[in-house]
Amino acid sequence: MAAKKFVYFFGPQGSEGNATMKNTLGGKGANLAEMCNMEIPVPAGFTIATDMCTVYYKNERNYPPELAEQVDENLKKIEAVMGKKFGDPQNPLLLSVRSGARASMPGMMDTILNLGLNETTLNGLIKKESDTRFAWDSLRRFMQMYGNVVMGIKGEHFEQAITNLKNKYGIKNDLEMTVENLKELVESYKVIVKEQTGKDFPTDPKEQLWGAIDAVFGSWMNERAIVYRKMNGFSDDWGTAVNVQAMVFGNMGDDCATGVAFTRNPATGEHIFFGEYLINAQGEDVVAGIRTPQQVTLEGSKKWAAEHNISEEERASKYPSLEEYMPEVYENLCNIYKKLELHYHDMQDIEFTIENRKLWMLQTRNGKRTAAAAVKIAVDMVNEGLIETDDALLRVTPDQIDQLLHPQFVKESKKSAKLITKGLPASPGAGTGQIVFNAEDAAAWRAQGLDTILVRLETSPEDITGMVAANGILTGRGGMTSHAAVVARGMGKCCVSGCGGLNIDVEGKTIKAGDLVLKEGDWISIDGSTGEVLLGKVATETPQFNDEFEKLMNWADNRRTLKIRTNADTPRDAAQARKFGAQGIGLCRTEHMFFEGDRIKAVREMILADDLEGRKAALAKLIGHQRDDFYAILKEMQGLPVTVRLLDPPLHEFLPSEPQQIKEMAEIMGCTEEIINDKIKALHEINPMLGLRGCRLGITRPEITEMQTRALIEAACELTKEGIKVFPEIMVPLVGNVNEFKYQEKIIRETAAKVFEEKGINVEFLVGTMIEVPRGALTADEIAEHAEFFSFGTNDLTQMCLGYSRDDANKFIYQYIDKGILEKNPFRSIDQTGVGQLVEIAAKRGKKARPNIKLGVCGEHGGDPASIDFFHRVGLQYVSCSPYRVPIARLSAAQAAINNDVVRQIKQTAEDAYSKAETTAKDVYNTAKDAYSKAESSLKNLKETVENSELKKTVEEGAKKLFNDIKDKFKKD
Amino acid sequence: MAAKKFVYFFGPQGSEGNATMKNTLGGKGANLAEMCNMEIPVPAGFTIATDMCTVYYKNERNYPPELAEQVDENLKKIEAVMGKKFGDPQNPLLLSVRSGARASMPGMMDTILNLGLNETTLNGLIKKESDTRFAWDSLRRFMQMYGNVVMGIKGEHFEQAITNLKNKYGIKNDLEMTVENLKELVESYKVIVKEQTGKDFPTDPKEQLWGAIDAVFGSWMNERAIVYRKMNGFSDDWGTAVNVQAMVFGNMGDDCATGVAFTRNPATGEHIFFGEYLINAQGEDVVAGIRTPQQVTLEGSKKWAAEHNISEEERASKYPSLEEYMPEVYENLCNIYKKLELHYHDMQDIEFTIENRKLWMLQTRNGKRTAAAAVKIAVDMVNEGLIETDDALLRVTPDQIDQLLHPQFVKESKKSAKLITKGLPASPGAGTGQIVFNAEDAAAWRAQGLDTILVRLETSPEDITGMVAANGILTGRGGMTSHAAVVARGMGKCCVSGCGGLNIDVEGKTIKAGDLVLKEGDWISIDGSTGEVLLGKVATETPQFNDEFEKLMNWADNRRTLKIRTNADTPRDAAQARKFGAQGIGLCRTEHMFFEGDRIKAVREMILADDLEGRKAALAKLIGHQRDDFYAILKEMQGLPVTVRLLDPPLHEFLPSEPQQIKEMAEIMGCTEEIINDKIKALHEINPMLGLRGCRLGITRPEITEMQTRALIEAACELTKEGIKVFPEIMVPLVGNVNEFKYQEKIIRETAAKVFEEKGINVEFLVGTMIEVPRGALTADEIAEHAEFFSFGTNDLTQMCLGYSRDDANKFIYQYIDKGILEKNPFRSIDQTGVGQLVEIAAKRGKKARPNIKLGVCGEHGGDPASIDFFHRVGLQYVSCSPYRVPIARLSAAQAAINNDVVRQIKQTAEDAYSKAETTAKDVYNTAKDAYSKAESSLKNLKETVENSELKKTVEEGAKKLFNDIKDKFKKD
Repeated sequence: MAAKKFVYFFGPQGSEGNATMKNTLGGKGANLAEMCNMEIPVPAGFTIATDMCTVYYKNERNYPPELAEQVDENLKKIEAVMGKKFGDPQNPLLLSVRSGARASMPGMMDTILNLGLNETTLNGLIKKESDTRFAWDSLRRFMQMYGNVVMGIKGEHFEQAITNLKNKYGIKNDLEMTVENLKELVESYKVIVKEQTGKDFPTDPKEQLWGAIDAVFGSWMNERAIVYRKMNGFSDDWGTAVNVQAMVFGNMGDDCATGVAFTRNPATGEHIFFGEYLINAQGEDVVAGIRTPQQVTLEGSKKWAAEHNISEEERASKYPSLEEYMPEVYENLCNIYKKLELHYHDMQDIEFTIENRKLWMLQTRNGKRTAAAAVKIAVDMVNEGLIETDDALLRVTPDQIDQLLHPQFVKESKKSAKLITKGLPASPGAGTGQIVFNAEDAAAWRAQGLDTILVRLETSPEDITGMVAANGILTGRGGMTSHAAVVARGMGKCCVSGCGGLNIDVEGKTIKAGDLVLKEGDWISIDGSTGEVLLGKVATETPQFNDEFEKLMNWADNRRTLKIRTNADTPRDAAQARKFGAQGIGLCRTEHMFFEGDRIKAVREMILADDLEGRKAALAKLIGHQRDDFYAILKEMQGLPVTVRLLDPPLHEFLPSEPQQIKEMAEIMGCTEEIINDKIKALHEINPMLGLRGCRLGITRPEITEMQTRALIEAACELTKEGIKVFPEIMVPLVGNVNEFKYQEKIIRETAAKVFEEKGINVEFLVGTMIEVPRGALTADEIAEHAEFFSFGTNDLTQMCLGYSRDDANKFIYQYIDKGILEKNPFRSIDQTGVGQLVEIAAKRGKKARPNIKLGVCGEHGGDPASIDFFHRVGLQYVSCSPYRVPIARLSAAQAAINNDVVRQIKQTAEDAYSKAETTAKDVYNTAKDAYSKAESSLKNLKETVENSELKKTVEEGAKKLFNDIKDKFKKD
Repeated sequence: MAAKKFVYFFGPQGSEGNATMKNTLGGKGANLAEMCNMEIPVPAGFTIATDMCTVYYKNERNYPPELAEQVDENLKKIEAVMGKKFGDPQNPLLLSVRSGARASMPGMMDTILNLGLNETTLNGLIKKESDTRFAWDSLRRFMQMYGNVVMGIKGEHFEQAITNLKNKYGIKNDLEMTVENLKELVESYKVIVKEQTGKDFPTDPKEQLWGAIDAVFGSWMNERAIVYRKMNGFSDDWGTAVNVQAMVFGNMGDDCATGVAFTRNPATGEHIFFGEYLINAQGEDVVAGIRTPQQVTLEGSKKWAAEHNISEEERASKYPSLEEYMPEVYENLCNIYKKLELHYHDMQDIEFTIENRKLWMLQTRNGKRTAAAAVKIAVDMVNEGLIETDDALLRVTPDQIDQLLHPQFVKESKKSAKLITKGLPASPGAGTGQIVFNAEDAAAWRAQGLDTILVRLETSPEDITGMVAANGILTGRGGMTSHAAVVARGMGKCCVSGCGGLNIDVEGKTIKAGDLVLKEGDWISIDGSTGEVLLGKVATETPQFNDEFEKLMNWADNRRTLKIRTNADTPRDAAQARKFGAQGIGLCRTEHMFFEGDRIKAVREMILADDLEGRKAALAKLIGHQRDDFYAILKEMQGLPVTVRLLDPPLHEFLPSEPQQIKEMAEIMGCTEEIINDKIKALHEINPMLGLRGCRLGITRPEITEMQTRALIEAACELTKEGIKVFPEIMVPLVGNVNEFKYQEKIIRETAAKVFEEKGINVEFLVGTMIEVPRGALTADEIAEHAEFFSFGTNDLTQMCLGYSRDDANKFIYQYIDKGILEKNPFRSIDQTGVGQLVEIAAKRGKKARPNIKLGVCGEHGGDPASIDFFHRVGLQYVSCSPYRVPIARLSAAQAAINNDVVRQIKQTAEDAYSKAETTAKDVYNTAKDAYSKAESSLKNLKETVENSELKKTVEEGAKKLFNDIKDKFKKD
């Protein structure tokens, strides 16, 4: 059996892989292969497949023997294509080694450049005198990077060596370092390596290569990577690929450059090519944000200069655009980016290097973008005929819609705030908080419930926890493609980067801006959409939506089958939700109305009353309020259904707990504190979650159900008389037994009938139940014979199905996630395996018993995309969520409809199969070709051997005889 | 269509019904019909079917028109058979009207005797002068009974009239009342009826009859009946039948008598005919217990006299047995009882009346019996070849086994107690408690947790609640068949009846016995097996089992497929359970071991420890204790499996709650109270039931799991070395996710492996889980791939599936039962519809994933017969219950095996079908016979008419012509 293929070649003559092989080659490797196939100039290289990563960890970090063979074989191919030799002193091939997982994980994995350099091969780099410095700089860069990433030496040791050297010779800028300086630096690096690791720095290129491969695979399980995957829900099992590629150099002189670009603006989505580059630099310099990069396009460059108050003259001379600097390379780049966007049908994030005016592409991938950009690009691309509306709907994530709903500054509040400075608008949205200077503080302050803005000179992967915890990120250095900017956009967190106007002292925990000195804990506000940094707190608000957003949501509404309702207890919430597109209220909690103003007094009177008379008298004081509440909400939602849930929480929630409050209540109620304390004691429950609440209240105190029904039906009658359409749905909570429902339904229908008679009018209404007790789900067929609708209360259903008290489970739930026992928090996203079974069972049995039953969800899962997909699949008719999640739910529901569209799935499967077949065919062809060429040469050899041999005659005769024998045999048969 | 048949006749010539028709005719009616079919002398009558009761309540207490027709028709049949006419002044037919539901409900329903009497028909009763008094006495009895039961007049009005009359004439005894006295009494009764109801007492017999029928149907829904049904789990839908039967009189003189008998001794089960009778009395006199009845058999009579210190001379003259008094009637009765027992294959409870030396049977039914009697009779009947062992196993209820396990007096304690008096041993078992004098007090005292003995002159159905609440019942009057005796036996409550030696003043709340005066609240002890009444508290103990019991349990063990284990946490419990037949420990709760002695200190140290080191140090102090505990339990259960559950309760349960305790703990632990209070606060949970407990403890604190596993495995190794067989099963509690189980299993197996290595020995053990979280049940297939056994924790499963906190649900659960929302307490008997589904799902999926998985139950439902039947049906392998319920579970499991035996079910179905076919055939035959006789007489009439008519010729000619026409037609065709 042939050894398993772990290594895939790519190069100008074509690749063994392609873009569909992301799972095997990682995103980067697959796209490099694809670009080669598209005849785009890419330095040759090979990809070690992600399978290897899995094998590596399964075998306790060991490789199978065939890997070395395959690596050697492919290394030879690179040498052949690039015309250089790995480790050759005259014409050395240098390599970059990069990680590349299935999905992009920016900054999470480690990269090595210039691999293969040592003091011998270094000479091979020097073609002309001016290359000497470049060669030595490359070596010291390589040693620094390799020493840090592969050998685990802290970067500060190398930085210190540079500082020492600079001090020694009075050097201010890195570029001032001479060849001699660099040689001295290389010597001191050797000492550092020896000191820190007890080993010499490896000079053998092969040893360097395997060290780097080890480091890439090893980094898959480093803490940052694990955290990032957990944060994004990526599986540990995916593994990373390793991309080994011939180096090209953007730092070999002024006819060299390196850059990063987006085929459209990643912040706004505008259809404008957008990129940054650095002359005479390596790629890492751009990403690290240490030097301020120049714009690729002329238009971009002019705009940038205007934003930075730089004169056109200064700009053109000091910061020319690539369009001006190397027009022919620019044109080439433009052709490539257009080709790529057309090919990938999506905005691309590309990396390029220009070596002696030759353009090399080092990466292409679907570009990360802000929420606003995602919407605009998706809608634009449909308008451009590049994608279908379904594609557009899948291009925007529900999280991005969430970001669009994120606060922006209230204009007036912003006007009155003092502008401190302006940086780059790196990630949109507004944030306000207290200044902290490192990730640990950001996390610690957050844990105390404080709002922070994380201020750093520049960020690195170590800062991610802090970035998550902060309300916004402000950096002193770095461009739009710096680490801070990219990560913040991904998180939907606002970020202002490259704030050169601030003098940030991270150690001393101060920021100076002219005379102004800010300390840790001071309030600032940042606007990631404009780059503004403001003093103090600025009020925020939710943005209005633009046309593209409306268009996208319109497509979503047409595509989805799930209706979206909202959970709203007030007319204000109801109005907000309607604006966001809610198609009804799925959950109106009546208990919230019990707390307002002097109503709580009547509620408490009811609780304290000794007998039914007393309780009814107290309820009589409440009914007017409830009717008014219902009136206002029904009016707001006219024409749309409103599901009103009967009183749900245990009565003790309406009583005070603190002695002072009890005293006050006693005074108000005109009774002794003892009476109140006795009542509190009597109502105390060990497990209130499983106690006297929900319909158990309405059954033990039917007068409450009666009052609430009367209030609602009276309001409905009144509105109907006014000519306003109402669709009330009365919902009985916590039903676990059909008899509970029947008992409550009887009271509701009798009360409604009485009101109708009194008012002389009839209003249509439904009576249904929440399914939130496991038994309710299991006996849904019985319940559906009486209930006209089910609304799944997935919060309580989760609590009871899993046995997790929501109030207490945080004590173990996060440990469970850390230990891999739970994949995610089941209160955020529905546990499809467990709780999902109950929902599915109940939906199925409910529909069987009552085919036209209405089925919805009103738990918080109703606003969670993964849960919405599940609810779509089990055939619910609507989800209900908080007003601000309504747009998210609308998009999620559309995505659920698309993703579960059978026709679409079949099409996708067919496309996948075709592409696999194509790959296989290509493989077979290549194998056959190889075999043919091998066979040809073998035959040739054999022929020669035979022809030259004494045996020729014997063989010829033997062959003839054999031929005749066979002929005879055929004749016989 | 023929009108529905509601009325079924029975009489000496045979019946329309039979014993299999209990659902239609009620128990009494079906057995009366059966006796008639057996040619046993029964006064003719008819039964209005239970269907009528259902129709009656559905039609708002109205009858369909056909009922009156059917009643009239059958009344005529009775008149024909008995040779008397209803309402006839010369020879009046009098009737009894009795209720009769499917199952016997003693004292619950109302009875009317002598119906049809008025001042006119009364004369027809008087055949000779001596009958005059009997006739008037019958009338006043009838008026009193009818006035009370049908017209709703309180009995005390009539009693008062008697007292007044007695006082007026200085009469002491009822029997002294003369005809004139009785006439005066009748007049005063008329006045009472008029005063109390505003209506005259009905004199029309028909009106009387329909009033009585109404009263019987009406009584089905009286409160006593509803309470009794609820207590016994009978459905309200069954309905009662009404039995209308010709009266026979046991009170027409000294050649008349009435009595009640059991074919075997209902207290001991001895194979001895046992009965009581009264000369010149009506049946109600025996049951009411007002007169002390005489014994039916001579042997019984002699024994009775000895017990009551009555000389043989006095006995023979004043209290002769029926055997002596009317030998030929006695012989007749003996033949009948033997025939009945042989026919019904069970001990019969019979009622008879002797009217002028003619024996009439009024009722037969399977006799109620004590638990001991049930066991003895069942075993004896198998030995006699009367029934099969399966029948015997079904003859004893698990409740009766429970009664047998009830305490009896400790001999020494009893010896030193003062005997106050002796009554009849009416219901066995020993009881001790404080004296109360009425049912309300008994209930109220019970509610306060007090033990009571209910002392009454005699009991009536109104006393049932009190009888349930009390530890025992003591009555001043009434025999072995009195209300108190019958009901107490049914309840398994000890009762001493007919305690003539006590002067009981219920109103004054005192008992006098000679010089001794007892007041409310004084302690007494009663022995229902001996009739002894003892002063003060006497210690009780559980009885030893006799041979019959052992034999029955042996049959049960052979019959059942479910194994019975026990829940035991101590060697003592384990030993007790083994004696009761436990086949292993299904649940050993380790947390109980944490509280004992100074262990709690170490537990608290562990809780307070800041780090793993501290926790491990604390656990090190516990491990020795746990190992010793496990050693002792495993040793006790040698050869049997022992399931040890890892620590389950939330840690806060191990901390004190009261300030004083906290202070003490702080002193012991050498820390501040603040530290402890902080810890208490940190561990506080809103819903501890759904909090950090079960395996969540072992996952967040793996060192506990490690310690417990080590303790158990070390003990197991030690015993194995000593040559003692051990089968430990380690049970992980509260698993809802397979990953929880895997996490714990890993620790357990690794720890065990370490111990085995240390000890140089291997012990087989299983690792399994409790299924007590709904999600655990729903994902049982996943869990079973790793868990070697499931033990259903149906307590928690019920809590979570229903959302009922066991600690809090009492606030609504009883209201739910009252309102018909719940049928029974789901914590007592498993909710098969809801929780049952989870058990079934888990069992099925568990077996699918691991065909040899062990499945058991360790919730309290493991000792509940109905639940055991369910567990048998879903295919579990064992149930585990508390030691004292093990014998109950053994029998229940056998009954489950029998009741679910398919072969048996088929046989039963075939028998039922045969019997139905027989009935149908008989019906068809009777209908055909009727039709034939009707047709015959019609024909005769027609013939006569035609022959005598002028039309004869015309008709004959017409017929001839018609005949010829037809003939012609045939020819043509």
